[in-house]
Amino acid sequence: MKLLRVGPAGTERPALLDDSGTLRDLSGLVPDIDGTLLADEGELARIRTAAASGELPRLDGAGLRTGPPVARIGKIVCIGLNYHDHARETGAATPAEPILFMKAPDTVVGPDDTVLVPRDSVKTDWEVELAVVIGRTARYLETDAQALAAVAGYAVAHDVSERAFQIERGGQWDKGKNCETFNPLGPWLVTADEVPDPQNLRLRLWVNGEPKQDGTTAQQIFPVAEVVRYVSRFMTLYPGDIINTGTPAGVAMGHPDPKPYLRAGDVVELEIDGLGQQRQVLKDA
Amino acid sequence: MKLLRVGPAGTERPALLDDSGTLRDLSGLVPDIDGTLLADEGELARIRTAAASGELPRLDGAGLRTGPPVARIGKIVCIGLNYHDHARETGAATPAEPILFMKAPDTVVGPDDTVLVPRDSVKTDWEVELAVVIGRTARYLETDAQALAAVAGYAVAHDVSERAFQIERGGQWDKGKNCETFNPLGPWLVTADEVPDPQNLRLRLWVNGEPKQDGTTAQQIFPVAEVVRYVSRFMTLYPGDIINTGTPAGVAMGHPDPKPYLRAGDVVELEIDGLGQQRQVLKDA
Repeated sequence: MKLLRVGPAGTERPALLDDSGTLRDLSGLVPDIDGTLLADEGELARIRTAAASGELPRLDGAGLRTGPPVARIGKIVCIGLNYHDHARETGAATPAEPILFMKAPDTVVGPDDTVLVPRDSVKTDWEVELAVVIGRTARYLETDAQALAAVAGYAVAHDVSERAFQIERGGQWDKGKNCETFNPLGPWLVTADEVPDPQNLRLRLWVNGEPKQDGTTAQQIFPVAEVVRYVSRFMTLYPGDIINTGTPAGVAMGHPDPKPYLRAGDVVELEIDGLGQQRQVLKDA
Repeated sequence: MKLLRVGPAGTERPALLDDSGTLRDLSGLVPDIDGTLLADEGELARIRTAAASGELPRLDGAGLRTGPPVARIGKIVCIGLNYHDHARETGAATPAEPILFMKAPDTVVGPDDTVLVPRDSVKTDWEVELAVVIGRTARYLETDAQALAAVAGYAVAHDVSERAFQIERGGQWDKGKNCETFNPLGPWLVTADEVPDPQNLRLRLWVNGEPKQDGTTAQQIFPVAEVVRYVSRFMTLYPGDIINTGTPAGVAMGHPDPKPYLRAGDVVELEIDGLGQQRQVLKDA
């Protein structure tokens, strides 16, 4: 299923994009799409049955904003340098184990919302990423099967990053990862049953129409199952948590000088096969 | 005012410790203590008036668990190496600007709850810290006065840390800061009006009755006002967010070998003058 949330920021309603591409209202069926719903197999089955019946009310999508597909996200764990080609372009060694950093849930916006270039920023950069949405509490998992069973679904994430804040300000990466609007998410949460192989997804990103990133999750150094298992040894993952699994090559930082960092007026478009598209216009904060 | 939340984990009720030390029930007055309440001057005034009237119902504290004093925490921003004496003991240079890292809100437990030593941990360490609770949205603040006006109050935080995960696992500090139960908070949120000088607070911590940390916020490299102002340039702070402002000298990592890292059965007690005490028994995860 493709689950989403539509409407003004803060008052989104739950919806479903059915197999024929018709937008359906779920607000008569469930209060919202969040960790509570994603952990509830019975409720998900109810949605599935209702969707199959074709009787869910249609929603007119014209002019309707798409919000992030998950409400009340608990935490966002991010994996750094998780693609062979991206590690190479940054000049970093291939990590021996996953690098973890964090984004606050308040950085999350809808897939087509404005992204703000922070004040005093000169190195705002893009990163298309496969986001993993957790559906089951994951704590000290031991096997890949357990890890994949904890995944409710997948979505497109844009891990917007300010490189000077991240790397040149004497601290941890979080400083350049948590500016407001820095995590567009969506349009959909695609349930895991419809993503048979998360290690075979093409990710692409364009800036002002020009192709910048064109990668595949086959290039991930630590695949989704290993990432979930690994993270669960250091922190407990709860339904509604998100893992941004890293970005392939092609970020601004990887370009020769002068590096094409983002500025107000730029348009970023990104997509992952089967998971939908995002489009953001940059503005000054 | 001293605001707190008492009762079983997940179903705490709001309460107040009045000037005579009597525990009072606030659940007839406000639904909970969270960012929404802390941002609402009118509601806080209503509590203040009710407290002064002496008519709030008494609560029998005997056998009652104290939870964390803030519900629905949005994010926890932590300041690394923010005390002159602690920077020295770790062998680190004095930071030129604040080091930021993050803890997930799901690491927060009550002040006397069990703290779990993670599996495979050999370097679980303690850190008594002054926590700043945000009461007003803080975004690109320019002055210390604006920064202090954004502070709803203060609390004791225990920034439990696994040093091997934090430093020796090829990544960012977050990996050793986000294990479950790693952020005891409370017992109280003391409103800012009752903390006239946040830079003159004594912080102490004992392990198994032995004094380990005895510092003062006068030793902070970046004082509270500067920290809030600084953080607000990189991320927007919202009511109900927390900043852990760093720890003074005396952590296990700062001891000569063999360093006395925490193990199951150890008892950690900590306090900050005027902000109350915590006591945790360590257990294995």
